[in-house]
Amino acid sequence: MGPGPSSVNPRVLKAMTLPILGHLDPQFFKVMDEVCEMLREVLHTQNHITVPLSSTGTGAMEAACANMLERGDKMIVCRNGFFGDRLGDIAERCGAETFILDFVWGEPVDLQVLSDALDQYGPVKAVGVVHAETSTGVLTPMPDIVELAHRHGALVIADAVTSLGGHDVRMDDWDIDVCYSATQKCLGAPPGLAPISFGPRAMEVINNRPSKVQSFYFNLKGLESYWNQTRAYHHTSPISMTYALRESLRMMMEEGIDNRIRRHARVAGALRAGLEAMGIDLMAPEGYRINPLTTALIPEGIEDTAVRGRLLSDFDIEIGGGLGQVRGKAWRIGLMGESAKESNVFALLSALEQILPDFGYEVASGASLSAAQRALVSYDDGGVLP
Amino acid sequence: MGPGPSSVNPRVLKAMTLPILGHLDPQFFKVMDEVCEMLREVLHTQNHITVPLSSTGTGAMEAACANMLERGDKMIVCRNGFFGDRLGDIAERCGAETFILDFVWGEPVDLQVLSDALDQYGPVKAVGVVHAETSTGVLTPMPDIVELAHRHGALVIADAVTSLGGHDVRMDDWDIDVCYSATQKCLGAPPGLAPISFGPRAMEVINNRPSKVQSFYFNLKGLESYWNQTRAYHHTSPISMTYALRESLRMMMEEGIDNRIRRHARVAGALRAGLEAMGIDLMAPEGYRINPLTTALIPEGIEDTAVRGRLLSDFDIEIGGGLGQVRGKAWRIGLMGESAKESNVFALLSALEQILPDFGYEVASGASLSAAQRALVSYDDGGVLP
Repeated sequence: MGPGPSSVNPRVLKAMTLPILGHLDPQFFKVMDEVCEMLREVLHTQNHITVPLSSTGTGAMEAACANMLERGDKMIVCRNGFFGDRLGDIAERCGAETFILDFVWGEPVDLQVLSDALDQYGPVKAVGVVHAETSTGVLTPMPDIVELAHRHGALVIADAVTSLGGHDVRMDDWDIDVCYSATQKCLGAPPGLAPISFGPRAMEVINNRPSKVQSFYFNLKGLESYWNQTRAYHHTSPISMTYALRESLRMMMEEGIDNRIRRHARVAGALRAGLEAMGIDLMAPEGYRINPLTTALIPEGIEDTAVRGRLLSDFDIEIGGGLGQVRGKAWRIGLMGESAKESNVFALLSALEQILPDFGYEVASGASLSAAQRALVSYDDGGVLP
Repeated sequence: MGPGPSSVNPRVLKAMTLPILGHLDPQFFKVMDEVCEMLREVLHTQNHITVPLSSTGTGAMEAACANMLERGDKMIVCRNGFFGDRLGDIAERCGAETFILDFVWGEPVDLQVLSDALDQYGPVKAVGVVHAETSTGVLTPMPDIVELAHRHGALVIADAVTSLGGHDVRMDDWDIDVCYSATQKCLGAPPGLAPISFGPRAMEVINNRPSKVQSFYFNLKGLESYWNQTRAYHHTSPISMTYALRESLRMMMEEGIDNRIRRHARVAGALRAGLEAMGIDLMAPEGYRINPLTTALIPEGIEDTAVRGRLLSDFDIEIGGGLGQVRGKAWRIGLMGESAKESNVFALLSALEQILPDFGYEVASGASLSAAQRALVSYDDGGVLP
């Protein structure tokens, strides 16, 4: 129940025991095609270049920046959490003149601030936004941001590492130019691959850039000729991980993409209700809370690592600590992929009810559990989440 | 039997079905420590930073260059095959002034040429060499090259992707500064991770470079604080692949590193003898042939892809085609890791004996098989390999 990797279904783990095929074996090309086709469905896109990169999500962040940016290009990065910060760092390493817009950690991106910045710093090549900030649990709605950026002639790079599979991500409808994710969150596969998709505007940039992409490993033109019908060798694909991703995507297709998202919303609502019943405040404002990860403000006087240590040692439950600015101030509780299930909610709430009093924080026994239960019933009745 | 990925032992595949641990779970730190300890043994090094990167070997090549080089640094790349060419491309993308020394594909690096270049272009920051060229099957002995480069104040970046586990790689004795490999060749794990090690001179460069490393994902200072005792988050480790690498390294320790190398030498000798008995010439000169991969010159009039197609469809055997300059001219036959076994040698030779006559190339039935058998006996008797 950390901020990812999430638990992985045995079917997905078992897929990795398939014999290794060569990365240029026609049978493996079929696996690749199947993976790409399902990734397009999950991202709701027709983009031809929708492929898993041979890296984690951070590598995809780098691939997005390295392919889009050339030395001297301007990029605006919306920073309302740890991963926005990372995006700015990477854009800068790619040689871009980077403008960081700071928003309060725990709040979504403010459109007006972005609009002013686009006016002030333009022309800007790209705007970088984190859809679901894993450090703060905040969702930034994308469509208006994309519309605004495009009106200013800027591309949009969207980080959907934690949102994909746990929230709607509609790449084509929302007109996002570059969108990437990772396998170990709501997609339900082990960490190690990072789906990425490039839209028409992004491909035009790539096809017309005068300078070489500074990374060979993440150079999209090279990757493209392996993933398209040319099948030219670029690097050796992580074969077993690709099997795992295929199986996890098949499971998502069986469940239904919308059902998967609803499952995430349902258990997240229950967790939030339980925590609030315990008197624990949530960090993200209502309406902007992400399903896959709930950020809980650690009550006054409670020592972060001691509680997390007890959870791990006595209850076999891992939750995440705060990153960056919120280190020691918030817990990050993941309910993503295979881990997004009722039993995890009740296991954690019950464990916290047992642990917190030892730290002088009194809780009414069972109160959080019944609040969670009520939230589940209310969700199933089509009621509004608490 | 391609140039990698090699087949993977079921024990290693099964290791990937272990439940996913968090990348910051103390239990996973133990897995990491165990992996690093065994990697140090395999590389014969005491280097603290000896870790698996979350990428394939090409990513490690990029990590080596990106961390060592700053804009304007001079690097000499010895190019005697496809991967030397790639190393030069990457060095250039890292902003280095790159000097490519061309050697005949199929020959090792010539010390005199390198020596002249070091005099002519110096001071040079680094020299890049591929220990075992997977495109040509040629081994370039390292110690003299390292000695020469150091005498000129240059670091040595050595690509041991195909050699590690199939040949002696003695990082400390040979005084190599940066050495990297990949999991899917002689180490016997699936593709997806890339061991890399940085020696004291390399660490000094990293610790004192004024400019930021252009890659965040491959930035060693960031990776170091995750892999050393700080355990600071850098990116989410590919957990399942790390289990696989641990199991494959454990199997290598059980077999013994030297025994593993001898196994590769033994079957490679048998394959070479069999091919030569069939009248097929080897590309690499005697004394510089790599064990894990044998390059066979395709006899006049034989169509490359047709033969490889028949091998795959009728005999379930994959061998590699030529890369770059030797495309269509050579076959690349891998006997690496789990695939380095007698039965593979006989299966391939027997398949070729059956296929080649259909292409008008007559072979004496059984001749290649008995030549291979004699080579095995001679190796076991301590005789010299034919």
